[in-house]
Amino acid sequence: MTSGWISLLTDYGTADGFVAVVHGVILGHDADLRIIDITHEVHPGDIARGAAVLEDTVGHLPVGVHVGIVDPGVGTQRRAIALQTSRGFLVGPDNGLLWPAAEALGGVQVAVELTNPAWHRPEVSATFHGRDIFAPVAARLATGAPIADAGPEIDPNTLVRLPIPPVHVGDGEVEASVHMVDRFGNVQLRMDGDLLSTLDDEVSVMGQSARRVRTFGDAPRGSLVVFTDSSGLAAIAINGGRAVVALGVEPGDRVRITSRNADA
Amino acid sequence: MTSGWISLLTDYGTADGFVAVVHGVILGHDADLRIIDITHEVHPGDIARGAAVLEDTVGHLPVGVHVGIVDPGVGTQRRAIALQTSRGFLVGPDNGLLWPAAEALGGVQVAVELTNPAWHRPEVSATFHGRDIFAPVAARLATGAPIADAGPEIDPNTLVRLPIPPVHVGDGEVEASVHMVDRFGNVQLRMDGDLLSTLDDEVSVMGQSARRVRTFGDAPRGSLVVFTDSSGLAAIAINGGRAVVALGVEPGDRVRITSRNADA
Amino acid sequence: MTSGWISLLTDYGTADGFVAVVHGVILGHDADLRIIDITHEVHPGDIARGAAVLEDTVGHLPVGVHVGIVDPGVGTQRRAIALQTSRGFLVGPDNGLLWPAAEALGGVQVAVELTNPAWHRPEVSATFHGRDIFAPVAARLATGAPIADAGPEIDPNTLVRLPIPPVHVGDGEVEASVHMVDRFGNVQLRMDGDLLSTLDDEVSVMGQSARRVRTFGDAPRGSLVVFTDSSGLAAIAINGGRAVVALGVEPGDRVRITSRNADA
Repeated sequence: MTSGWISLLTDYGTADGFVAVVHGVILGHDADLRIIDITHEVHPGDIARGAAVLEDTVGHLPVGVHVGIVDPGVGTQRRAIALQTSRGFLVGPDNGLLWPAAEALGGVQVAVELTNPAWHRPEVSATFHGRDIFAPVAARLATGAPIADAGPEIDPNTLVRLPIPPVHVGDGEVEASVHMVDRFGNVQLRMDGDLLSTLDDEVSVMGQSARRVRTFGDAPRGSLVVFTDSSGLAAIAINGGRAVVALGVEPGDRVRITSRNADA
Repeated sequence: MTSGWISLLTDYGTADGFVAVVHGVILGHDADLRIIDITHEVHPGDIARGAAVLEDTVGHLPVGVHVGIVDPGVGTQRRAIALQTSRGFLVGPDNGLLWPAAEALGGVQVAVELTNPAWHRPEVSATFHGRDIFAPVAARLATGAPIADAGPEIDPNTLVRLPIPPVHVGDGEVEASVHMVDRFGNVQLRMDGDLLSTLDDEVSVMGQSARRVRTFGDAPRGSLVVFTDSSGLAAIAINGGRAVVALGVEPGDRVRITSRNADA
Repeated sequence: MTSGWISLLTDYGTADGFVAVVHGVILGHDADLRIIDITHEVHPGDIARGAAVLEDTVGHLPVGVHVGIVDPGVGTQRRAIALQTSRGFLVGPDNGLLWPAAEALGGVQVAVELTNPAWHRPEVSATFHGRDIFAPVAARLATGAPIADAGPEIDPNTLVRLPIPPVHVGDGEVEASVHMVDRFGNVQLRMDGDLLSTLDDEVSVMGQSARRVRTFGDAPRGSLVVFTDSSGLAAIAINGGRAVVALGVEPGDRVRITSRNADA
């Protein structure tokens, strides 16, 4: 079940020493552990973004322990948790960050609250649980310590979950929420890309003409396209441009795509 | 020839999960492979910049497989290629990105087109060839699989190459193109630094007074200097300042440096 | 004493190839060495910031060789040095960058100037000592070569030190300098957090009302708090906000905190 791999996703940035300290704590526990940095550039406190990147990524990483730390409630009553799935562990705060990734790994089998002080740094600060709780817990799980020793089991149904925005599929139209915007300005919707096949080839995205294509390179430069992206979700792009600018949307916004005929 | 090392240069940024997924695919193929991240901060689609950084860097890295992904044509007819040199492999799109690095490693010995589906992810997306083609190919090459199995050999003369800007050396003057601007605002020219020795100590750079020196610290703070940089190329800097701002240039712009006497 | 670990802190950024070249030189010396990147995002030439992050971080990293490169005087007469402490080595320029970290590791036991050319790259450039001097020296120290071979011993009292700003503790007030501002906009003072206990629970920070708390989550969103941070230093934060914006301070600025009663 364990493999000696730990992956990290945080909102710590890379300009301070926080990430290196977390690496140091993990490697101080066992120098043979290996670490993959997913990203540390989640906007401070943006749990939804962190959850989306973690969900999208964990399935492609070596089986191991995935640590997510976007934790504006650090030091308050929010629980610190570890989740066991059939394809690895997740460690972090109980604020919705880990749940979608757990689903991507097959669902939560066991959930525990991280209350065993023997698994923490001797002194736990009120503000840096990455160093004091999450890193030492992850290192122990990654070296094969049983999750039951991390703390008491809790009911998975009590875990905090982010709201899942609805997908609307109608006659010649679909509507869904923006899930993520990537570095290229591509707009990913929280909707299965297969649902795009209910539309014509010529569509309208928020009133702007677009084409359904296999990849953005299939359309002329500057034109708006709709396609199934590499995660299998519906996405909107501009060949050589930034769809996010053309559409003026951000994560959580609703986007409606209609067949051009239906539009008329 | 192979050593288990893979280095990565992309325009993926580090805020999305793309880079971690590429790491995951490589390490999922063989957990003993080791990865060096050259940079992922190439501006999206800036092939010339990616080519320049890759060219400048590969000679200092462990011999292995160097993957370059700046690939605005992903999913279209552009070829995916691997190049064998006497000092390692290069993997990426055939759009000019890899060629200068191949030259830095001694030149292309064998070139193949990556068309063998057995070396790819079972399902190849139209937009994420880093995950689906380049990472699995790099992992196979780095673990010693023969390049001939990656796909059919192609004629190196058919590879796409970026134009090489001319260098002009005249009587008391030189002219060359801006190659790269680094984090410190230093302006590197695509011209051998030795050619600066054809000039006087007092020179004029685009009409501004400057001195030929060994290092920027050899001149008073704020003054413009011309020198041979750590890559052996001609460069322009300001001690304690940003030459790129003073000159107002960007990559590709022509820069003329003249002996001050010749100026008069 | 050595462990095969090298950590790196620089102002090189990650958009150029500098950091990868340093990795390449280290791993070219011995492929079994392991590297932790502390940060490469120190603002160019900001020695005080680099020193503060290095000081705060080294105690949490595996014992090994810590390389600091914020080196605006590269290529001039400033000395290149290595320092031995009871808990590892420090390597970098003699400009104040390394001293606070050496103190954090128990103080300088031996200091040497890096003048032995056999420990350097055959050709040493005037501008990239990270590649040509610091990386090869760090690799040798990390693989157990004796520091005495790196160059002649120098008197630790001759090492350059940054000024240490004074802390003022008065009747119901404290005053100290801003040490670091982190990604979350939290303002860390160069003052032991325990000194905050000399104040009332209700305080005034530069004239703005604030509360002494255990963590920023203990106060209502948007309110200013004063607490002991995870490094044990006094810090100022806003729950869900950026204290650095509210206070309008930067590193080096003086901050005065007074008991509210004392204010009246």
